[in-house]
Amino acid sequence: MKINGTPTRTLRADPAARRIDIIDQTALPHRLAWIGVDSLAGAAHAIAAMQVRGAPLIGATAAYGLAIALGAGSDDATLQAATATLAATRPTAVNLHWALARMRRCLDPLPPAARLAAAWAEADAIAEEDVAQNAAIGQHGLGLFRTLAPRGPVLNVMTHCNAGWLATVDWGTALAPIYAAHDAGLALHVWVSETRPRNQGLLTAWELAQHGVPHTLIADNAAGILLATGQVDAVIVGADRIAANGDVANKVGTYLKALACAAHCVPFYVAAPCSTLDFACPDGAGIPIEERSGDEFRLVNGLDAAGQPANLRQLPAGEAVANPAFDVTPAALVSALITERGHCPASRAGLAGLYPEAQHG
Amino acid sequence: MKINGTPTRTLRADPAARRIDIIDQTALPHRLAWIGVDSLAGAAHAIAAMQVRGAPLIGATAAYGLAIALGAGSDDATLQAATATLAATRPTAVNLHWALARMRRCLDPLPPAARLAAAWAEADAIAEEDVAQNAAIGQHGLGLFRTLAPRGPVLNVMTHCNAGWLATVDWGTALAPIYAAHDAGLALHVWVSETRPRNQGLLTAWELAQHGVPHTLIADNAAGILLATGQVDAVIVGADRIAANGDVANKVGTYLKALACAAHCVPFYVAAPCSTLDFACPDGAGIPIEERSGDEFRLVNGLDAAGQPANLRQLPAGEAVANPAFDVTPAALVSALITERGHCPASRAGLAGLYPEAQHG
Repeated sequence: MKINGTPTRTLRADPAARRIDIIDQTALPHRLAWIGVDSLAGAAHAIAAMQVRGAPLIGATAAYGLAIALGAGSDDATLQAATATLAATRPTAVNLHWALARMRRCLDPLPPAARLAAAWAEADAIAEEDVAQNAAIGQHGLGLFRTLAPRGPVLNVMTHCNAGWLATVDWGTALAPIYAAHDAGLALHVWVSETRPRNQGLLTAWELAQHGVPHTLIADNAAGILLATGQVDAVIVGADRIAANGDVANKVGTYLKALACAAHCVPFYVAAPCSTLDFACPDGAGIPIEERSGDEFRLVNGLDAAGQPANLRQLPAGEAVANPAFDVTPAALVSALITERGHCPASRAGLAGLYPEAQHG
Repeated sequence: MKINGTPTRTLRADPAARRIDIIDQTALPHRLAWIGVDSLAGAAHAIAAMQVRGAPLIGATAAYGLAIALGAGSDDATLQAATATLAATRPTAVNLHWALARMRRCLDPLPPAARLAAAWAEADAIAEEDVAQNAAIGQHGLGLFRTLAPRGPVLNVMTHCNAGWLATVDWGTALAPIYAAHDAGLALHVWVSETRPRNQGLLTAWELAQHGVPHTLIADNAAGILLATGQVDAVIVGADRIAANGDVANKVGTYLKALACAAHCVPFYVAAPCSTLDFACPDGAGIPIEERSGDEFRLVNGLDAAGQPANLRQLPAGEAVANPAFDVTPAALVSALITERGHCPASRAGLAGLYPEAQHG
């Protein structure tokens, strides 16, 4: 994706300095701030505090976090402890565990002296694959968009949360087809759902603006009336985990949009790379749902009266809050899954067509 | 309803001083501030700026606003101009127009000299009827709650927006059954939906806390997973307008909750007084949907770092926002309408049973 016309990635690795630079997404959309991460604790904090967020970027950051940790020693115990620290940061994101497992498959057989260089190389490979996969998702999604007949002069696409450039190393997952469509000259407009309580929609609006894609921010609550009044031609979201039967765990609120799409016969697409697929999980009932802190409601990031970034207390102290971070959309409500290999029905059979090697028995 | 154990109404009228006192709801939940209104402009501003909000309280405030206006002269021209000013404040709320029409039916036939006293008396009557109707809604809703079999030790009821004490002169509409149930000793817990973009759920949480009703705040997005996981026994909301066929216009986001209720066989109730019924409107397609300013997103009420109420800028300037304030829930998704006369199916026939006098031809 481009910022001010310059191709830019969300994560820059510097193996020689044993550090990575990431964007502190908690400061966006008000300030674009790069921060250096040169310790295991820093990498774990970046993931847990959602300085980096989005399943693919979490995976890449965890991989580099393991590489950074090995700078302090590459024996089995260090490797094991660092893996455990990183794995504990976010329970729902399957990419985190996928990336760590891949790193371990690469590193465990090696003698400790060979592990540091191998870890950086493998983390780089994970990052490069993410970029390539997302570019492929973009093209496959663009193909689906071209099959739609917009009701107006532009294709109106709605998205939820931020499954974009900021959630990946480049291009995004749900937003990759949007960037591909825009770059291909397709006239489109994006409805950006605010995504309470953390307002990740503001990140989506920010990155669409950087790349020049027309868009409008809406309250999550507005999805129903926009769908009911024919103002949405398709909804596309990312995923945090896709079960073997095609059930999709994604940011809380996704399920309500899927229900409204079904009620109005509007396609509901889920775009995600293969690392999001969990063939060991038979269906959505098996996906753990992370309950996050109520402080996500109590505090709101914004600008104070002087225009400075500030944390404002939105709720009186003591107000009880429940904050499930994800929900599960049943496969029956998903029109298609879009992956780096193409698109398929959200079903066991559909996934078997794209990933025959993953089918057992 | 009680505040600190003292029965309290949201609107206090002082005919001798030709003024009313209302709560500035834009300062809640952080500060309970009463403000005096002694001019037509003040009354119109209170409604347009949502210092008062909620269909019944808007109606009562408009009625008193007309009485206040007549203090400056009670000729036909003044009456006509004041009615027009008040009617223009909020396009969707049918109660506003209902209250003004009722005032005009009372005042128009009178000689100008008799109008001032009659206006205050009629506004008082509107306010007293609101209190009585809401108390009746509370009892009818309680009757419905008693027919439900909670899945856990308490009855879990979800609501949206604020159709409570603060939206009426007393008790509320959707919250009246909740207060009635709590006062009757029914063990219940309320899921309070935040209700972006204006966060009226914070008002609901505040007033439930005043009266001592257990409750938990959630993001609007969380309704789907809570319903899908059996944590909600019923949803109850208010209405801004109910069409003759039972279609319901209410705060944006209501429709998504109704869809999720239908998907999980959870009752979805709409509680409203007869002034909300618009028999002249055949169905939801005829209800105008107010588009409100994007500033409702850009600015967030809260407390600054020093704990003082502040308006925080949440969005960068220039970000495009769409902000439909209401949506329409089709009658087929509504389990029952609850009014001051009882409850009925959300249909033409159901409403005819409760309001035979309103049926034409």
